[in-house]
Amino acid sequence: MNTCKCSKAEFDRERNETLSAQPEGKGLVTIEEEPIIGETPQAILKSWLTPNPLFYIRNHYTIPEWDSDWELSLGGHVNSALSFTLHDFHSFPIQTLPVTLECAGNNRSDLEPQVPGNPFQNGAVSTAIWAGVPLRHLLERAGISEGAVEVLFEGYDAGQPDPSVDVQPYLRSLPIDVAMHPDTLLAYEMNGEPLSREHGYPVRLVVPGWYGMASVKWLKRITVLQEAFEGFFQTDRYIVESDDGEPVPISKMHVKSLISWPEPNTALTVQSHMINGMAWSGFAHIAKVEVSDDGGETWNEADLVGPRYRYSWQQWNIAWTPKSAGHYTLVARATDEDGNIQPLETRWNSLGYIINGVRPVCVEVS
Amino acid sequence: MNTCKCSKAEFDRERNETLSAQPEGKGLVTIEEEPIIGETPQAILKSWLTPNPLFYIRNHYTIPEWDSDWELSLGGHVNSALSFTLHDFHSFPIQTLPVTLECAGNNRSDLEPQVPGNPFQNGAVSTAIWAGVPLRHLLERAGISEGAVEVLFEGYDAGQPDPSVDVQPYLRSLPIDVAMHPDTLLAYEMNGEPLSREHGYPVRLVVPGWYGMASVKWLKRITVLQEAFEGFFQTDRYIVESDDGEPVPISKMHVKSLISWPEPNTALTVQSHMINGMAWSGFAHIAKVEVSDDGGETWNEADLVGPRYRYSWQQWNIAWTPKSAGHYTLVARATDEDGNIQPLETRWNSLGYIINGVRPVCVEVS
Repeated sequence: MNTCKCSKAEFDRERNETLSAQPEGKGLVTIEEEPIIGETPQAILKSWLTPNPLFYIRNHYTIPEWDSDWELSLGGHVNSALSFTLHDFHSFPIQTLPVTLECAGNNRSDLEPQVPGNPFQNGAVSTAIWAGVPLRHLLERAGISEGAVEVLFEGYDAGQPDPSVDVQPYLRSLPIDVAMHPDTLLAYEMNGEPLSREHGYPVRLVVPGWYGMASVKWLKRITVLQEAFEGFFQTDRYIVESDDGEPVPISKMHVKSLISWPEPNTALTVQSHMINGMAWSGFAHIAKVEVSDDGGETWNEADLVGPRYRYSWQQWNIAWTPKSAGHYTLVARATDEDGNIQPLETRWNSLGYIINGVRPVCVEVS
Repeated sequence: MNTCKCSKAEFDRERNETLSAQPEGKGLVTIEEEPIIGETPQAILKSWLTPNPLFYIRNHYTIPEWDSDWELSLGGHVNSALSFTLHDFHSFPIQTLPVTLECAGNNRSDLEPQVPGNPFQNGAVSTAIWAGVPLRHLLERAGISEGAVEVLFEGYDAGQPDPSVDVQPYLRSLPIDVAMHPDTLLAYEMNGEPLSREHGYPVRLVVPGWYGMASVKWLKRITVLQEAFEGFFQTDRYIVESDDGEPVPISKMHVKSLISWPEPNTALTVQSHMINGMAWSGFAHIAKVEVSDDGGETWNEADLVGPRYRYSWQQWNIAWTPKSAGHYTLVARATDEDGNIQPLETRWNSLGYIINGVRPVCVEVS
């Protein structure tokens, strides 16, 4: 071919080696070792940008390997089936976007009564600057045929997700309008570094505003579908039941906030403290965050600070001076610009998703 | 004191150890080893966010050490002199801001005739997400007295900058209005990580929009002044001569762009290529970037892509198909929203600053 390809590939390899000297996952709070599942430590949730080694990981299967050079195939209900190499990706338009991803099961350990599933505390949420190619660019090259309704994504990773079903690759679909949205990315870069193996090297999907299960890693195949996909992680998991018992697939992140500081059970003195945290919603910008020091009786509005971007969490802080010594229950509640209000109580569901009720943080003031 | 202080300090220490496993400076293009001076490699200039280990470094003296716990003193022409610990900083309001810093001598090696000074190519420019406390917050606590005109910043680092002058700390001042601007930061965090030693741990100044020399590292003392500061790096260096021979201190970054890809002398074929790069100005948002494939005869406007923030560079790309085989000279030219246009030729100056003329990139198409 040409020398630029060689030198770029060589450079990427060297860069990867340099940057991955720090093994991913080290420093995370381990939930499971195989496949790797870990959450971001509480103290890191104070930072708007999550450093790559501390970005939460929720893998479904073992990190995949494959023999030949990586290629991504794009087919199904399209005018012309195509395949793409990593070199192709670097010759397409770049899109860079700050995006917060949250695992649908974040805070699952808070549910009462408890449910099975990874017992996340509040750290299965992180923010990175992602760069890649708009998925739309590839779909337009292939040409979507009339009647297409969904786009299916297959990862190189595979396994048996449940004893009741066969070994299968990780598969998730998106409605065609979400797939065609200019901000839906095929990302090859995370915080200025090539994706690490743990986060989907060389190319993963990033669906801004959606819970993390939609952002398929280690992409292998993209298939345009004429009918809705049914599969284990589409129709058996990542669903909640509606009030009348119907299964509803989960998609956008519901409005939520967390208190970064103080941590639970922090001992404080009667002086001014800066309570701070994050708030996010997959539906709209955060409109306000309110904080209560009496467990939700009265509320004070926090200052929204730092970057204010569509798909990343909103940092907030509020000065607080306890009136006197004693026990305090701090809570934060976010509201987004669509009028969605973080509920005081999570709606309990048997698989433990969308756990966005306000979370009390108890502190002792002496 | 209280347990939160201890646990936070302990956590910060552990976090620092984990994150600094990757030594800073490794991977940079070395300009000088002592003090550390290095630039970001060309291939990394393609990423909007610069990973910390690859963020350019231009230190003036050896990285300082000090015996006691770090403290920052604030005095001079104020109502009450104060001092602050790192713990205090974490109890102040947080500000998080994406900021591009460029060394005033970036591209110095391009000057003809050559001048003394660090022979930077085009990599003494990088972008990070900085977090810290607005300087204004501290100045308001101390109370600025009537008649203050500048604020002086002293780093813990010291040395003899030139045989003609004494050993001295690194000292730089800012006009009072710049110091009081809500976006002028005392930063303790860079891309979600505590500052590394090379980048000014524990706290440095970040002056958005200004060349890097203003963003004093390893802060030791802040002094509010009633008259303009004169010092080696204020009035002997970091100045250019006006057309009538008067010394003019440099401040805001002049409008400029770089071509990230292709690199100079890349061998290409006659097909579609995606030329991409960055553009920035300390004065305003970037309004447009134009690219020429005939050395500046004719220009085509590039797409501005990715984040569009006030103080960070603007990513751009443009599809380009060479008409035929041969030698091409590619150039990019940025214009900001204040109407500043990147000049075709740098204004030569004897110290080699503000080198923002368009920079040709030659490629061979076969």
